[in-house]
Amino acid sequence: MSKKLTSRTEDYSKWYNELVVKADLAENSGVRGCMVIKPYGYAIWEKMQAQLDKMFKETGHSNAYFPLFVPKSMFEAEEKNAEGFAKECAIVTHYRLKNDELNPGKLMVDPNAKLEEELIVRPTSEAIIWSTYKGWVQSYRDLPLLINQWANVVRWEMRTRLFLRTAEFLWQEGHTAHATRQEAIEESEKMMHVYADFVENFMAIPVVKGLKTQTERFAGAEETYCIEALMQDGKALQAGTSHFLGQNFAKAFDVKFANKEGKQEFVWGTSWGVSTRLMGALVMTHSDDNGLVLPPNLAPIQVVIVPIHKTDEQLEAISSQINDLMADLRKVGVSVKYDNRDTHKPGFKFAEWELKGVPVRIAIGPNDLENGTYEVARRDNLSKEVVSKEGIVLYLQNLLAQIQTDLYQRAFDYRNTHITEVNSWDEFTSVLETKTGFLSAHWDGTAETEEKIKELTKATIRCIPLDRVEEVGKCVFTGAPSKGRVLFAKAY
Amino acid sequence: MSKKLTSRTEDYSKWYNELVVKADLAENSGVRGCMVIKPYGYAIWEKMQAQLDKMFKETGHSNAYFPLFVPKSMFEAEEKNAEGFAKECAIVTHYRLKNDELNPGKLMVDPNAKLEEELIVRPTSEAIIWSTYKGWVQSYRDLPLLINQWANVVRWEMRTRLFLRTAEFLWQEGHTAHATRQEAIEESEKMMHVYADFVENFMAIPVVKGLKTQTERFAGAEETYCIEALMQDGKALQAGTSHFLGQNFAKAFDVKFANKEGKQEFVWGTSWGVSTRLMGALVMTHSDDNGLVLPPNLAPIQVVIVPIHKTDEQLEAISSQINDLMADLRKVGVSVKYDNRDTHKPGFKFAEWELKGVPVRIAIGPNDLENGTYEVARRDNLSKEVVSKEGIVLYLQNLLAQIQTDLYQRAFDYRNTHITEVNSWDEFTSVLETKTGFLSAHWDGTAETEEKIKELTKATIRCIPLDRVEEVGKCVFTGAPSKGRVLFAKAY
Repeated sequence: MSKKLTSRTEDYSKWYNELVVKADLAENSGVRGCMVIKPYGYAIWEKMQAQLDKMFKETGHSNAYFPLFVPKSMFEAEEKNAEGFAKECAIVTHYRLKNDELNPGKLMVDPNAKLEEELIVRPTSEAIIWSTYKGWVQSYRDLPLLINQWANVVRWEMRTRLFLRTAEFLWQEGHTAHATRQEAIEESEKMMHVYADFVENFMAIPVVKGLKTQTERFAGAEETYCIEALMQDGKALQAGTSHFLGQNFAKAFDVKFANKEGKQEFVWGTSWGVSTRLMGALVMTHSDDNGLVLPPNLAPIQVVIVPIHKTDEQLEAISSQINDLMADLRKVGVSVKYDNRDTHKPGFKFAEWELKGVPVRIAIGPNDLENGTYEVARRDNLSKEVVSKEGIVLYLQNLLAQIQTDLYQRAFDYRNTHITEVNSWDEFTSVLETKTGFLSAHWDGTAETEEKIKELTKATIRCIPLDRVEEVGKCVFTGAPSKGRVLFAKAY
Repeated sequence: MSKKLTSRTEDYSKWYNELVVKADLAENSGVRGCMVIKPYGYAIWEKMQAQLDKMFKETGHSNAYFPLFVPKSMFEAEEKNAEGFAKECAIVTHYRLKNDELNPGKLMVDPNAKLEEELIVRPTSEAIIWSTYKGWVQSYRDLPLLINQWANVVRWEMRTRLFLRTAEFLWQEGHTAHATRQEAIEESEKMMHVYADFVENFMAIPVVKGLKTQTERFAGAEETYCIEALMQDGKALQAGTSHFLGQNFAKAFDVKFANKEGKQEFVWGTSWGVSTRLMGALVMTHSDDNGLVLPPNLAPIQVVIVPIHKTDEQLEAISSQINDLMADLRKVGVSVKYDNRDTHKPGFKFAEWELKGVPVRIAIGPNDLENGTYEVARRDNLSKEVVSKEGIVLYLQNLLAQIQTDLYQRAFDYRNTHITEVNSWDEFTSVLETKTGFLSAHWDGTAETEEKIKELTKATIRCIPLDRVEEVGKCVFTGAPSKGRVLFAKAY
């Protein structure tokens, strides 16, 4: 398989698909719409999981596990509440295979093993979790419930793309229950900030924090907080959502508590989630035509070392020095790999680790041995430097931190130069055609206008930024009064 | 809800069910046969996962993720190979719900959204993984593949019990591919030893390592290695299995590689797994009539501290001292909880933490403050001691290590006194009636005898111990010659 990628300018979408497969992140499986997350891709996801899990626990949450299946009747209870929730889902109707007597060696679904009630493979777990919470909450003393679940979910998407939209994906879903409205709102805001902190400081992706419009909101929520990122091709990507559910699910599943005065009240809820979709955001924010670019904070391998030698003696001398270096690096928490495969040439290895986005590559040859140096190459900007072996550990630690900062800054600058204020419909449409990114525009606040703009341009309101300036203006589409700007964009 | 448990002698099975629920480990869900793993139970599972994951990585394995669904045709390919594999599984036949027009507010399965090919919710992942490996292996350079997956699986069990047998459960499944038969055998043996190491040193449960008979073997395996534990009621529990698959799955899914000479060969496989079933083994090995007993190496809370006070000033003085103690304990990696709830009395708290199996409880009252002491209570043997606060951190570290050792030793002694050598059919049946545990007996090596003994007594051959002595003998049932003893028991 050729390692050469289609360039981003040639075909961004093709570049993405090729990169995900060639960098060994994921591939399509033999099951329609489902992906295989390969070991290298999964190692990145594990780093993301570990960091998020730590942040959830530091904010007082515990993990638990709820069933994969939701009985149809339970799903209906939610459905009443959350009109418009996606009905495209995998449905289990039978529980046994049997030998097909007409086709020896083949199996068939046993018609006698039909379930009395169909089971839905969870597309999200509000229904099963709130029906469980009913048994867990009696008094205000049982609140808050601060619970998270790491799980697989299934949504029967017709058009799928690795990580960005797959029938099955991995995610975490937080589900909390509170005694007061205020506390639940604070929780949903807190988790939006946790997500933003994670995405900015670990993934090196700047985000806009905001509120979804009613149209874009989760159907069962009173308010949806979100973080929105901008990809290199100027399309937006929703990187995480945190929902204030009000008492909607408490009412649907009859979850009440006795308050301090002994009076029965419905509890207040939140839910919040991020998924393997973030892997797609990571790829599309930093990577280039040579392959993946990983921020050091999430790279499974932060430093790769390639020996360059002609003789076995040279390799032996290099290896002996490198073993010491690796021990020193591991001591300070730097993950390092020594690529001493004798089956491949240095040039092949360079290209492979470039494709896989390892932040720092060290090459060492006989001259370096003699001079006490290393050749250190950065993956992000492809620069190289010859560095003395004295103080190399500290140098690498600082370099990794610098790369992390630089990647964020580069994405931040790109994002900021791709937010355009537009003040008329002409401006809106012409900017949308000539320059990608967010359009900051006045909107009259109606779902009709939002829908109309989407129909005409495919741009949707990504969010109402939390930090927007109160500013009197006129809707770019209808001219009706507006109190502030919202962000439009075409989105993944 | 009463915290009082049914005693083990009264009804072991009832005791188990009550304990699992009351200690907040798990509960039955609204979905038939599926459990909810509650935060406290899940915290124990997370500790188990973390340790196993570390051990898998130290032995060179990486994690990956494969689809939840297996198309029926892929399942058939395996089926030919693995005759007799369970066909009780959840089957997805449709992919959409729609509003039921005859029943407003209700949903129905959309008959127009029938899948062309049914999807099986994975009962195990050999089929999907080996069909993927086909694309990953071309040459001997691609081997070995050493991959593990943490996942949920579903088997449509009719009679379920929390942790021990549930329709959905959590597990890890390792799937490896090798260039030689010898290497694959070594891998399956290695993972059996990893499991034994984990179960003995972290769960404090002694195990017998052995081979399954052909009858008890995984259908797709050439050899199944297992570790067998003995529960307090004298029934055995299979705690983990590691299968040498030969070339069975490689042949079923056409996974070949070019060897060093360029010749095409089928690869050799292994698979190995442990599941949330281990939680049941943990409960049934150590716990008592007062509740859970947890080995310190897996306890989410190792030390709980309960203040005893009459006045607010006393509580303040206690809390100030405890805050320092907790900081010191956390510094050395001891997980500690200060239960200063003002809603519950010390007696209530004592009972609660006893029920939840926290290994060490510290009580501190005004007298202790004055005397510079703590009251330290062990959960495992219910002993108490007054200990000086000088050197308390080291004292507690040693105590936790001691409890870990003592729990193992107690289970080891119990297990060893419950292995009985029997040399005739009379002995076999009478010992089985009067004394539970393993029966060490000669067996003629035939499936017929094994089956017959099972029919008559419900005892099965748990394993052929790896360390058994070569000993000429006669089968207890048929009198036919035998080369050594095997272990029989009734089992979970």
